[in-house]
Amino acid sequence: MLLPHSGILFSAMTQLSIIFLGTGGSWPTVKRNVSSVAVKREGEIILFDCGEGTQRQFQKSTQSYMQISKVFLTHFHGDHFLGLPGLIQTMQLNDRNKPLYVYGSRGVEKLISQLLSLGYFKPAYEVIVQEVSDGDVLEFGEYCVRVFRVDHNVPAVGYVLEEHMRPGRFDKPHALELGIPEGPLFGKLQRGETVILKNGRKITPEMVLGHLRKGRKIVISGDTKPCERLIQFSQDADVLIHDATFHSELEDIAREYGHTTARQAAEIAKTAKVETLFLTHISPRYLDYHVLEKDAQAVFEHSFVPKDFQEVEIKLKK
Amino acid sequence: MLLPHSGILFSAMTQLSIIFLGTGGSWPTVKRNVSSVAVKREGEIILFDCGEGTQRQFQKSTQSYMQISKVFLTHFHGDHFLGLPGLIQTMQLNDRNKPLYVYGSRGVEKLISQLLSLGYFKPAYEVIVQEVSDGDVLEFGEYCVRVFRVDHNVPAVGYVLEEHMRPGRFDKPHALELGIPEGPLFGKLQRGETVILKNGRKITPEMVLGHLRKGRKIVISGDTKPCERLIQFSQDADVLIHDATFHSELEDIAREYGHTTARQAAEIAKTAKVETLFLTHISPRYLDYHVLEKDAQAVFEHSFVPKDFQEVEIKLKK
Repeated sequence: MLLPHSGILFSAMTQLSIIFLGTGGSWPTVKRNVSSVAVKREGEIILFDCGEGTQRQFQKSTQSYMQISKVFLTHFHGDHFLGLPGLIQTMQLNDRNKPLYVYGSRGVEKLISQLLSLGYFKPAYEVIVQEVSDGDVLEFGEYCVRVFRVDHNVPAVGYVLEEHMRPGRFDKPHALELGIPEGPLFGKLQRGETVILKNGRKITPEMVLGHLRKGRKIVISGDTKPCERLIQFSQDADVLIHDATFHSELEDIAREYGHTTARQAAEIAKTAKVETLFLTHISPRYLDYHVLEKDAQAVFEHSFVPKDFQEVEIKLKK
Repeated sequence: MLLPHSGILFSAMTQLSIIFLGTGGSWPTVKRNVSSVAVKREGEIILFDCGEGTQRQFQKSTQSYMQISKVFLTHFHGDHFLGLPGLIQTMQLNDRNKPLYVYGSRGVEKLISQLLSLGYFKPAYEVIVQEVSDGDVLEFGEYCVRVFRVDHNVPAVGYVLEEHMRPGRFDKPHALELGIPEGPLFGKLQRGETVILKNGRKITPEMVLGHLRKGRKIVISGDTKPCERLIQFSQDADVLIHDATFHSELEDIAREYGHTTARQAAEIAKTAKVETLFLTHISPRYLDYHVLEKDAQAVFEHSFVPKDFQEVEIKLKK
């Protein structure tokens, strides 16, 4: 049975990947650039934060910055946005003409207007800026992005990218019983279309599809101390990408600078019942990231410190 | 004989190196970052331009950005300055407290004030900005920096880093004749100090040193079309680092965008009788830089396309 929902059904073939472009915190190191996470969904890239050097990280990755449709900024510390003016300028030099959407919390319009008026640059395509705040839900057809306040030492938000419902499971034996011939009609029904058989019988998708199934859910914490709102917004997420700047030995320092330890991030992931936790915003002090991974895995086994350029495909559940 | 001069004599042991941090033009590629050249002289680094990602180029090099004393900007296109805010912020996070000097042509004060007020950053050390213009000579003790106007599609300048005179050749046979014992007194005289021998005789440096000798001279063109002023300011330079964005086959495009071809840069180097020409601001289109090197070498043999991170020591002539 089809259930009411606010978005558009999407195909079970829709690919969704995360590309970690910058997993380091505060300043870049040889191995880790500053913050940026790309989410690739169909032909579109949705970028979360854009630290200095992100355009070059794209070039060293398998992805193209020309596919970026939207940029979400978590907060306005340099290591999260200073790559934006260069990226915008380079896309222009490469003949971009479609608009770019940029989202961020209060002050984002001023910031982007500053970034677009540095030196002799004149934007030749539209950069559309939208201020967001806690509780906002931005609808983008097959998915939405939810905004929630986090707890850093400057105003900061986290984001949830959540796909809407997708068609239920196709009941092939029942479809054959109904006299539907195996072939293109199966695909049409799976995509939610009604079909007419040669004998004139009308078959609606509801007759052969199970309950609508949930889409995928990715949560990006940005920089934050451990916070309740994050647990709430991360419930049952496929992926939580969380600030884990320090090891639990440095919990005091983490608190002082408005960050989370690997252990604390793991506790959040466990409480929120997420499937996989990626620890990010790694402090330059940790040359051996395994200590952070172990710190988290003691609490939540599916904890990983991604390397820059690591790509993770998020599969739909059966 | 000592000649009158405006600067301070420097030791023949003074090392001078060029570190190419970013040799690409317009936007970064996998192999070349955007513009930045570091000149290391004694414990100081003098930076010419600071494209996005320069702080990370430093980390991948043998040099430390904490040693930067001065930054000279050639012009205000993003690929020449967008690395500055991140660099300034990172030096602050690493407890810099000594002032940083930034030089650039008209508008530099506004630009730096914009760069220092992005997001939540508050500078905690002094950034001292000085506007420069054609013909200025900035004195820094043992060396000076000359400013000259170049011909780009926005206001732009080039710079000459020129060491002042250094002591003349030490005439050892004559010194021994004068009864000066081999040892520490030799060093004092070479450094320009007067010494008193055990027999009471006063020996002045002029008595044992030849004519003052010239220091080293490095010229940075920034982005420019071929221009007369550059030839004039590059006379007899040890090193000319020149815009060579395109191959001579694309001379029309070079002219249109305010750049120079490799061949034209070689002609300038030849006319100005420089010792070595480094071709830089290489367009992303040239995956094989040898074509540019050959284009220049047909006119001027000592033409090279440096790779990012290449270090070149500039030796004093005998």
